[in-house]
Amino acid sequence: MGKQPALGVCYYPEHWPEALWAQDAAEMVAAGISYVRIAEFSWIKMEPEPGQYEFGWLDKAIDILGQAGLKVILCTPTATPPKWLLDQMPDMIAIDEEGRPRGYGSRRHYSFSHRGYRAACETITEILAKRYGTNPYVAAWQTDNEYGCHDTALSWCESARDHFRLWLAKRYGTIEALNEAWGTIFWSMSYRHFDEIELPNLTVTEANPSHNMDFRRFATDEIVSFDRAQTDILRRHSPYPISHNFMGDFNQFDARAVASHLDIAAWDSYPIGFLQNLQDKARRDPKLEADCYRVGDPDFQAFHHDLYRAMGRLWIIEQQPGPVNWAAYNPIPAEGAVRLWSWEAIAHDAELVSYFRWRQAPFAQEQMHAGLKYRNNDDAPGMAEAQQLAQDLSGLKLDATTQAPIALIHDYEADWMTELDGQSRDFYYLRLLLDVYRAIRENGGSVDVVGPDADFSGYQLICAPSLMTMSDALMDRLIASGAHILAGPRTGLKTDDFQLPPELTQSSLAEATGFTTQRVDALPAHLPQPLSYEGEEGAFSVWREAGQMSGLGQGQSHDGLPVLVHGNQASYLCGWPDAKTLRHILSDMMQKSGLTPIAMPPYLRVRARGKHLIFTHYGPEPVTIPEAFTGKVILGDRQMAQTDVTILEI
Amino acid sequence: MGKQPALGVCYYPEHWPEALWAQDAAEMVAAGISYVRIAEFSWIKMEPEPGQYEFGWLDKAIDILGQAGLKVILCTPTATPPKWLLDQMPDMIAIDEEGRPRGYGSRRHYSFSHRGYRAACETITEILAKRYGTNPYVAAWQTDNEYGCHDTALSWCESARDHFRLWLAKRYGTIEALNEAWGTIFWSMSYRHFDEIELPNLTVTEANPSHNMDFRRFATDEIVSFDRAQTDILRRHSPYPISHNFMGDFNQFDARAVASHLDIAAWDSYPIGFLQNLQDKARRDPKLEADCYRVGDPDFQAFHHDLYRAMGRLWIIEQQPGPVNWAAYNPIPAEGAVRLWSWEAIAHDAELVSYFRWRQAPFAQEQMHAGLKYRNNDDAPGMAEAQQLAQDLSGLKLDATTQAPIALIHDYEADWMTELDGQSRDFYYLRLLLDVYRAIRENGGSVDVVGPDADFSGYQLICAPSLMTMSDALMDRLIASGAHILAGPRTGLKTDDFQLPPELTQSSLAEATGFTTQRVDALPAHLPQPLSYEGEEGAFSVWREAGQMSGLGQGQSHDGLPVLVHGNQASYLCGWPDAKTLRHILSDMMQKSGLTPIAMPPYLRVRARGKHLIFTHYGPEPVTIPEAFTGKVILGDRQMAQTDVTILEI
Amino acid sequence: MGKQPALGVCYYPEHWPEALWAQDAAEMVAAGISYVRIAEFSWIKMEPEPGQYEFGWLDKAIDILGQAGLKVILCTPTATPPKWLLDQMPDMIAIDEEGRPRGYGSRRHYSFSHRGYRAACETITEILAKRYGTNPYVAAWQTDNEYGCHDTALSWCESARDHFRLWLAKRYGTIEALNEAWGTIFWSMSYRHFDEIELPNLTVTEANPSHNMDFRRFATDEIVSFDRAQTDILRRHSPYPISHNFMGDFNQFDARAVASHLDIAAWDSYPIGFLQNLQDKARRDPKLEADCYRVGDPDFQAFHHDLYRAMGRLWIIEQQPGPVNWAAYNPIPAEGAVRLWSWEAIAHDAELVSYFRWRQAPFAQEQMHAGLKYRNNDDAPGMAEAQQLAQDLSGLKLDATTQAPIALIHDYEADWMTELDGQSRDFYYLRLLLDVYRAIRENGGSVDVVGPDADFSGYQLICAPSLMTMSDALMDRLIASGAHILAGPRTGLKTDDFQLPPELTQSSLAEATGFTTQRVDALPAHLPQPLSYEGEEGAFSVWREAGQMSGLGQGQSHDGLPVLVHGNQASYLCGWPDAKTLRHILSDMMQKSGLTPIAMPPYLRVRARGKHLIFTHYGPEPVTIPEAFTGKVILGDRQMAQTDVTILEI
Repeated sequence: MGKQPALGVCYYPEHWPEALWAQDAAEMVAAGISYVRIAEFSWIKMEPEPGQYEFGWLDKAIDILGQAGLKVILCTPTATPPKWLLDQMPDMIAIDEEGRPRGYGSRRHYSFSHRGYRAACETITEILAKRYGTNPYVAAWQTDNEYGCHDTALSWCESARDHFRLWLAKRYGTIEALNEAWGTIFWSMSYRHFDEIELPNLTVTEANPSHNMDFRRFATDEIVSFDRAQTDILRRHSPYPISHNFMGDFNQFDARAVASHLDIAAWDSYPIGFLQNLQDKARRDPKLEADCYRVGDPDFQAFHHDLYRAMGRLWIIEQQPGPVNWAAYNPIPAEGAVRLWSWEAIAHDAELVSYFRWRQAPFAQEQMHAGLKYRNNDDAPGMAEAQQLAQDLSGLKLDATTQAPIALIHDYEADWMTELDGQSRDFYYLRLLLDVYRAIRENGGSVDVVGPDADFSGYQLICAPSLMTMSDALMDRLIASGAHILAGPRTGLKTDDFQLPPELTQSSLAEATGFTTQRVDALPAHLPQPLSYEGEEGAFSVWREAGQMSGLGQGQSHDGLPVLVHGNQASYLCGWPDAKTLRHILSDMMQKSGLTPIAMPPYLRVRARGKHLIFTHYGPEPVTIPEAFTGKVILGDRQMAQTDVTILEI
Repeated sequence: MGKQPALGVCYYPEHWPEALWAQDAAEMVAAGISYVRIAEFSWIKMEPEPGQYEFGWLDKAIDILGQAGLKVILCTPTATPPKWLLDQMPDMIAIDEEGRPRGYGSRRHYSFSHRGYRAACETITEILAKRYGTNPYVAAWQTDNEYGCHDTALSWCESARDHFRLWLAKRYGTIEALNEAWGTIFWSMSYRHFDEIELPNLTVTEANPSHNMDFRRFATDEIVSFDRAQTDILRRHSPYPISHNFMGDFNQFDARAVASHLDIAAWDSYPIGFLQNLQDKARRDPKLEADCYRVGDPDFQAFHHDLYRAMGRLWIIEQQPGPVNWAAYNPIPAEGAVRLWSWEAIAHDAELVSYFRWRQAPFAQEQMHAGLKYRNNDDAPGMAEAQQLAQDLSGLKLDATTQAPIALIHDYEADWMTELDGQSRDFYYLRLLLDVYRAIRENGGSVDVVGPDADFSGYQLICAPSLMTMSDALMDRLIASGAHILAGPRTGLKTDDFQLPPELTQSSLAEATGFTTQRVDALPAHLPQPLSYEGEEGAFSVWREAGQMSGLGQGQSHDGLPVLVHGNQASYLCGWPDAKTLRHILSDMMQKSGLTPIAMPPYLRVRARGKHLIFTHYGPEPVTIPEAFTGKVILGDRQMAQTDVTILEI
Repeated sequence: MGKQPALGVCYYPEHWPEALWAQDAAEMVAAGISYVRIAEFSWIKMEPEPGQYEFGWLDKAIDILGQAGLKVILCTPTATPPKWLLDQMPDMIAIDEEGRPRGYGSRRHYSFSHRGYRAACETITEILAKRYGTNPYVAAWQTDNEYGCHDTALSWCESARDHFRLWLAKRYGTIEALNEAWGTIFWSMSYRHFDEIELPNLTVTEANPSHNMDFRRFATDEIVSFDRAQTDILRRHSPYPISHNFMGDFNQFDARAVASHLDIAAWDSYPIGFLQNLQDKARRDPKLEADCYRVGDPDFQAFHHDLYRAMGRLWIIEQQPGPVNWAAYNPIPAEGAVRLWSWEAIAHDAELVSYFRWRQAPFAQEQMHAGLKYRNNDDAPGMAEAQQLAQDLSGLKLDATTQAPIALIHDYEADWMTELDGQSRDFYYLRLLLDVYRAIRENGGSVDVVGPDADFSGYQLICAPSLMTMSDALMDRLIASGAHILAGPRTGLKTDDFQLPPELTQSSLAEATGFTTQRVDALPAHLPQPLSYEGEEGAFSVWREAGQMSGLGQGQSHDGLPVLVHGNQASYLCGWPDAKTLRHILSDMMQKSGLTPIAMPPYLRVRARGKHLIFTHYGPEPVTIPEAFTGKVILGDRQMAQTDVTILEI
């Protein structure tokens, strides 16, 4: 941590005449850009006919970019196999959940489980690795592009079915063990052999959740091995670090598992499109939507920065530079938003903020996606903001980011379980985590988003909402950290096999919090349940839990159910509160943990980076940084308007 | 009628260690339970390998339960064929309306039309019938489980197509007769042979409604013969009565036809899930939804009790015991709701109220479905309510249920026709019937829900809303009963072939009511049409009719269309009124029929069982039983809070 | 133009006993009807067995109708091939976008690309053409019926794929040219041969828009050649004019291309169903929906009359005569609405208003679709309105319709491009055009709706909203017309290949308007953006554009973006305004063009037909014709209630 941040850009030499490359490179450098990512969709250009390779163009592009002073991030092109490869092995295509072969004509048209396609990927990767593995202008690798995008993590094809059976045989050893773990006796679903097991799609009613859960685990393992095949080759031939670009609001595979063999956890940040999509999914918030329509959710990007930062060196490899094309609606960002987003990333320790893309493409699927430059080579508004950022940075030496005092546990398996366990169609795991994250930020807190395998030492408060499985071992580790634990709602309700724990809630959690969940009250968002908490009125919606209480209750629902239950070192939140109540609760929990909450003005956020406090403002109304934050202004001003950035040195 | 009600429970010995069975049985008996239903999903346990039968476990379970004093309801296991059977004949799987084979991994994965699967079902049924047909602990049978659940009544497979062609050939004799009945000349759809006829799915625009209608009739006949094959075998080997468990808000086949060869018409009652689902379907009522969220619609269960009671001895074989898992939202029932629902069933002559299930399963698809006991064997709140019910009953000798003074005609064919005839997407047959049923209950009335083939003698008022075909013979029978008839809206508008009657409305209906429908005004629920009726303002929504009036009009729509038209012994309701107007109309119709309506407080309901009046209260506000109801309180109190039950003896 | 309008009716002799035909014919004549359309769905009656023709019934029907004095419009029966033909060549069935073969049992069950089916169509057409080509009672032909209805313009079958490849090879010559035009390099989609190209359905994410665009063009060409094969045969054997019946709110193929070889552009006008469907699609207007629920949108029919009038002699071959059956809701039309709609058609130069249908069919799919007569042969209310219309017309000699002073450019390619280019899911091309059309009508204007290839001379104002491609040549022709041009929003943003123009906006457009679009602000309808225009407050919603302005701005959005930009002879509208602002803008533009806007009372409309001004009133409140309209009342009255029609002679 503490590396000074750099700017980058995504560039497609294959889209433009060679004559333009040198000029583009020079302009990038002039704009303060030092990294350039290339080639992730260029397989047909590298291998226009089967086995006939053409790398002259790529040699030249790398030379030109490198000689201009840019560091190249080179990608394997496996997200877009050529048509001729698909025609050679038509069964490499993924099958969708409805049982339909997915069509050719866009991208990601392959199944991770098809071994023939894997072999082809290894071949092209090896050729690239050998050719450019020690090229001095190359600085890093990216494997493939956005694994899982467009619902491609899961394929319901025969390759997947066959490998799933092998995976199950390996996981369970005997079919009896699988029958036991899945509870197949329930509907006479017991299997005699692993070869009787089908994929869990198109079933008459929902498939066994353990069956679904294992299929998701299998899909992650398939992506891990697919990616690992590439990184193994790259590492054999190249010393450069390897990245992959993950996505926001995405749960189809466990990114932590993939990142474990990568150096850099990159992600693609598109604040505005994500705002709209998330609103469509759960607990719509019309005021936030209207207030932040052109800046994005004030916590969504920060949350993901913290999420991926815990998986490796953090890169924003694709940063939205202006209006895009793929969301339901695609507005123009507010003036200053591109710089604001960039600073938010840097505040969270991004080493690289790289804009997608240099120049707007005039053709094909993303022609309405902005670049830093218009299609006619004029600068688009994002360019000036990137340049401003470069200028901001040039005078600064930012402190290293240090561990936050608060941890929020995020778990892909918990996410899958909440989805598969249903109960309320308005429950959305990411939204719940984001609400907790937001409540901490509204109290001026900084957060690390970590997996359940993290080292918890040094934290003062650890939040674990909807961590569906909370093993005794994990609970022991949490307690051992000395932090205060805030669990719930929906924490510890399942075993690893997706069964109910014998004692309803996992027992060491119940012991620590003084609360055992017995029944869940799964509600529509439109029927909130009033509560009172410390003299203020609020409401739970979507989710409540009823159970046995041995701890100390705080607050009450209208019908007497507790809001919070406190054990010695852990508390349990018994439902999903409205934003105001949750803010109040997190303030109390921070105080209980020895932290000092500071009430932030609406939509103002702060992130500590050592002695530097980086303030970002997302709201339509001007605000003033609270006096509790002392220190010297080294960028911006204590009075802040929408999209303003201010840095205090304390 | 008049049999004293018993309590039961659904139990799955195959889910639990044998060591627990005796204790479970003893606890059931202690709780006041006398019936236990078992084995409906246990085929794989009975026949773990093709042709290798294992019944030791079942022998033992029946022995243990029976020796504890419980009466066993034994099920055929045909709702969940083992995977090995499907692998033996893969074409036994149903094909969904989209043309996709349905997947394995849940339940009901078979087509009723596959003769190979039928043979397999007959074999296992015969083995069970022979083994347990005279077992003294067995008291009754259940065939299969919830026919049609998860859209399984119809299969679009080749077996269905082939048998549909044979069925049509039998129904029509000649292809010319079919062409005439269907009006195939309309779009050049005339057939030359029965083998040219396809199933009516995936057509370019909607298929011929007569074609669809016959496919639905065929599907019912397939289920009847499928079920009949089992009951014939059971009756050959066993003297015990036979039941099947039907469902609520379900119209995919004609339950009356299936029940005609059964002894017991059981159904599965889940008040809360049905409330939500029905709200999603038609004419949303947000106040009722909010007021009754934790108790269910005050009339939905009662309606279904009356519906199935007319088909055989009434059992509630699965009664919701707490929160469930399968609805869009799954809240915790209000305290007392389980007892309330049980009493509502008993008020409607249920001989058995059996809870689903004894203990919450810790695994598989329904692990979030409550039982009377928690997974850890503690009592869940439903247990105390069941015990309370047992205690309520122990001191009572309830009068026999007698025929109600009012009949409401329900007809599956009418339901299919309203659906296939479209016109307004907000029209929902069951909801219309429920609205009429509710309006009678709000006037203190008791109702029998009967089919069009019922014996109508003894009724004073007969309601026939949306009875799409009203033959002259039926009309004659209705008139002959001496009752007053309330027809409409949408009554008598089709012939049995799904054509328009020559005189627009079936003629004896028009003669009796003094109204001939000429045009229908099919509207969205959001554009209500104001009306005035007896000095009060109201509205029709979704449906109105315009026509020729020879009878006496009462009330008027804003544009002059009549609200009600009265002939001598019959009246026609010319649209679908709001709840208040409908209540007013039914009050008037009851008076016209010589009955005495009593205005009930909101959400209070009453059902007469001989001299016993059983009051159930669903509303959030306390109410007092109206003074018009005299008699001695033998249970509860005249002041009633939500979920209270009171019985008056008159 | 200026032909006196006639009345017609659609008749199905094959649905009724021969004994009724003569009486029906006599009654038609008595009602003032002179045209009768027949036989479009009667293939099975003409050819009941393969190769066995039966025309006796048709000979007789034509004789009876003709001898009664009616002119017969005879149809080719190719919209409903018999089942035996499908069984002969099962691959003639269309495949839907989901990859499913469409089922038999309704109509339009064929792919336009299947050459075997085409041959069968040519055979039956030739037989009809030879037999009736010079029959004195036949007056005109109709080919097939409603091409494209029920999503049948596109088929995703192998025939379509194979012919699409040939079509592409012909269009592009070389695969390199296609790769260039489509920008296939974007996602490694470059093709080596035309045979590598698939249809653009079921792709992982959206297919290349140029790929989709060419598939739509191909589909139009397939329909053109399918239709042309029939018209070539008809013209060889018959001197009578040929029509096809197009539809409303329909964009799946380019009707202008089909109409180019026809004589008559007929369309089927169902005002009420279209109102509901359009409300469901874009920018819902609840007040208009409620006010016009029983009369239809006051501009929708007029717009389509103007649209099709520009393609040939205008016929309304199917005019809604009462409530229909196919919309989501199907209300009864207001009294007088049938006459009102007929007059609106005549006001727009319809030579024929023909009602669908004579008598309500008692069977099959459309039994709830009204006719002029009820099923029992009584007159339905539409009959009296048709007779009233005949009487209205008998005393009148209407002036010829002359060119309107205002042109609105409508382009099918622009429609496809807006749909394929996405950006805001609330953008709907037809609705935008209708809004502009409405704003002109609200200012008392008359409009011609023309294609981009029209002769623009004589217009004073030409509007080109969302004309996505605006070539320099077209812009030159527009300028040369001398008219004032109102372009935008979303005009000139694409090349013909569906790429961005090099200079962002097509350059001569930018030069003429003084505005170059750089970024689009694509918004949800529920987040309107305030603007002020000439002292009045309004809003843009769904769409705004930001760019470079060299012209004169008028009005401003809240954030400074212009509302209108004026160049010398052209103006650019920079967003989609609310109705009031748009009315104001069009008033200003009319004045700028030397026209005199007249503010019309709500829902009152006028259309000039030479010296005859025909007023139609759609609103629920009575209105008075503004005094600015002088002249003698020759029909109706200056005071007008809903559905009234008034004609002034000036």
